[in-house]
Amino acid sequence: MSDDFTFTLEAKDGRARAGRFTTPHGEVLTPVFMPVGTTATVKAITPAQLEEMDASLVLANAYHLYLRPGDEVVAEMGGLHEFMNWPKPVLTDSGGYQVFSLGKNSEIDDDGVTFKSHIDGSTHRFTPEKAIEIQESLGGDIIMAFDECTEPYDRANAEQAMQRTHAWLERCIEAKKRDDQALFGIVQGAVFPELREQSAKFVSSLDLPGIAIGGLSVGETREEMLSMLDVIEPILPEDKPRYLMGVGTPEDLVNCVRRGMDMFDCVLPTRMGRNNAVFLRDGSRLPLKNAPFARDPSPIDKECTCYTCRNFSRAYLRHLVVVKEMLSATLLSIHNLHTLIQLTKDMREAILAGEFEEFVTSWEKH
Amino acid sequence: MSDDFTFTLEAKDGRARAGRFTTPHGEVLTPVFMPVGTTATVKAITPAQLEEMDASLVLANAYHLYLRPGDEVVAEMGGLHEFMNWPKPVLTDSGGYQVFSLGKNSEIDDDGVTFKSHIDGSTHRFTPEKAIEIQESLGGDIIMAFDECTEPYDRANAEQAMQRTHAWLERCIEAKKRDDQALFGIVQGAVFPELREQSAKFVSSLDLPGIAIGGLSVGETREEMLSMLDVIEPILPEDKPRYLMGVGTPEDLVNCVRRGMDMFDCVLPTRMGRNNAVFLRDGSRLPLKNAPFARDPSPIDKECTCYTCRNFSRAYLRHLVVVKEMLSATLLSIHNLHTLIQLTKDMREAILAGEFEEFVTSWEKH
Repeated sequence: MSDDFTFTLEAKDGRARAGRFTTPHGEVLTPVFMPVGTTATVKAITPAQLEEMDASLVLANAYHLYLRPGDEVVAEMGGLHEFMNWPKPVLTDSGGYQVFSLGKNSEIDDDGVTFKSHIDGSTHRFTPEKAIEIQESLGGDIIMAFDECTEPYDRANAEQAMQRTHAWLERCIEAKKRDDQALFGIVQGAVFPELREQSAKFVSSLDLPGIAIGGLSVGETREEMLSMLDVIEPILPEDKPRYLMGVGTPEDLVNCVRRGMDMFDCVLPTRMGRNNAVFLRDGSRLPLKNAPFARDPSPIDKECTCYTCRNFSRAYLRHLVVVKEMLSATLLSIHNLHTLIQLTKDMREAILAGEFEEFVTSWEKH
Repeated sequence: MSDDFTFTLEAKDGRARAGRFTTPHGEVLTPVFMPVGTTATVKAITPAQLEEMDASLVLANAYHLYLRPGDEVVAEMGGLHEFMNWPKPVLTDSGGYQVFSLGKNSEIDDDGVTFKSHIDGSTHRFTPEKAIEIQESLGGDIIMAFDECTEPYDRANAEQAMQRTHAWLERCIEAKKRDDQALFGIVQGAVFPELREQSAKFVSSLDLPGIAIGGLSVGETREEMLSMLDVIEPILPEDKPRYLMGVGTPEDLVNCVRRGMDMFDCVLPTRMGRNNAVFLRDGSRLPLKNAPFARDPSPIDKECTCYTCRNFSRAYLRHLVVVKEMLSATLLSIHNLHTLIQLTKDMREAILAGEFEEFVTSWEKH
């Protein structure tokens, strides 16, 4: 890692943390929620709209971009920042998760994974070296190690996958050439405390610029997820950002910041936006298609300051949903993303003020 | 009409006109292209994006809004401006065209039209009085008379429809109650010069705040359309805005401004945007899905100042199209709408400078 990356722990309140992560494309204030831009676009949202909701770090995906348009095309167009017109920090996922969840007939061995594209059935092979090469072409600020993610409850499988993930992480570190990208390692181990402990210790020992926790929010219960964080978190170095992959909902964000997590991503806010649902700040959901909203002049959330809530009624949004207008996906996604981003910003303020538990109490009562 | 509406003809260059139409929600500078917001949304575009492309007048449709969410719902929510968050002028179409083109089993008589909804087959009846009532509920600044639009080449039918359109226009004037809305009459007569002449004279005799030309761009040739304008235009009063309904392309706009038209609307720019096509200022089209664009770092149009051209390459836009991302509809529609709006603004400047023919020559060579 070059001097381009520094993480400053600004405050701690209980286990909750407020930090500042510097990257070549600007600072990320944590806790942070990252909008997911799988194919180099946050679905239905322009970069100007992301800017307006104060997004900082945006996520893109190596598996998807390798297949289309091809990581070499993105490189030729100047890298992801230039390609998708996002001047602020970008994180790319390695494709490990997608190779298993989307790729067909995946065959894994200790060296890597051979899989068929979910788009055209063509055969491809990812190794740790290939995953790094793709992510170096894409040019994100933060890149992720190539890992194996398993289903939660098969211990033998989870242990083997964890061992592979560790071996692959060492190969990723070896393969990495660019100095202007920060490689994060990934803790695996499913729902088994001893595996999680072992993995957290191994990844922490490598002095990487950041540590991610993978293999959660993949089918286990919320209690299991939180108990894994209770195992992992005390092992992690304080001076590195912690990224909890694929999480989550407003409740998850509050619960996991409380357990020392700093960075989050999830497709939920945009997926819900395309499926006519919005959440309120407390995590409760409004199914906007329901009849009672037809003549409701109030915004989704009276206290929300997003573009959608400042300008449109529930009645109008329901109308867009009923007549199947594309604008509904845009406006509902803006609200959902803004809600999570604002929630992380509010938690950050509370942590800096030493009032995080008061914040949680008041949030729970809301 | 109240004092809320005034039309000032600021300059004439040949038959091309630059005007200023004042409405209760602000001024409209002509020539003007109106984005179409059929169901109270310009498809895939936010009002903030419309504002950024300098749209002034936006069109919505009485037929669609009567069916969903219901014009009384829009009224209850404060009218169209409030409902769709568009503080500038709004024009509503009467639904005459849609009753015939979308309604099923339409049965017309001299009093009105009975039709079945294209959505659920339910039976409805529109009369001139009903069309005005709906548009008064919707609350647009400019409302349109209820007319009968026929296919271009059946003379007997065209003459009967024209006579009905005239009788209905008188009933619309009679039915109209609100002072803060301007009612435009519609000239019909298909492609028959003597009918168009008769209709233009009749509508012009009624001293309405504006005159529309309907029943063009519905299947006749471009030459037939332009020759009808040559018949109609000299008859129209100079001191009223002229609205050519359903037109058009960049070429149509130039050709029709040259023939004294002031206002235009067309679904083409947004429909093309949803179908992966964009036009350049000269009217030529780029099918963005084509392979040569995959590695093209240039914007759609180097001289265009729209949000899309300022920020995104053809390579990125093609990628969005290929992976079927919704953002492509938004970004391509922004470009297409901006192109037509900018073209009308440039024509206005040329007319004010007395250089319209030079503008046309340079535009044709472009």
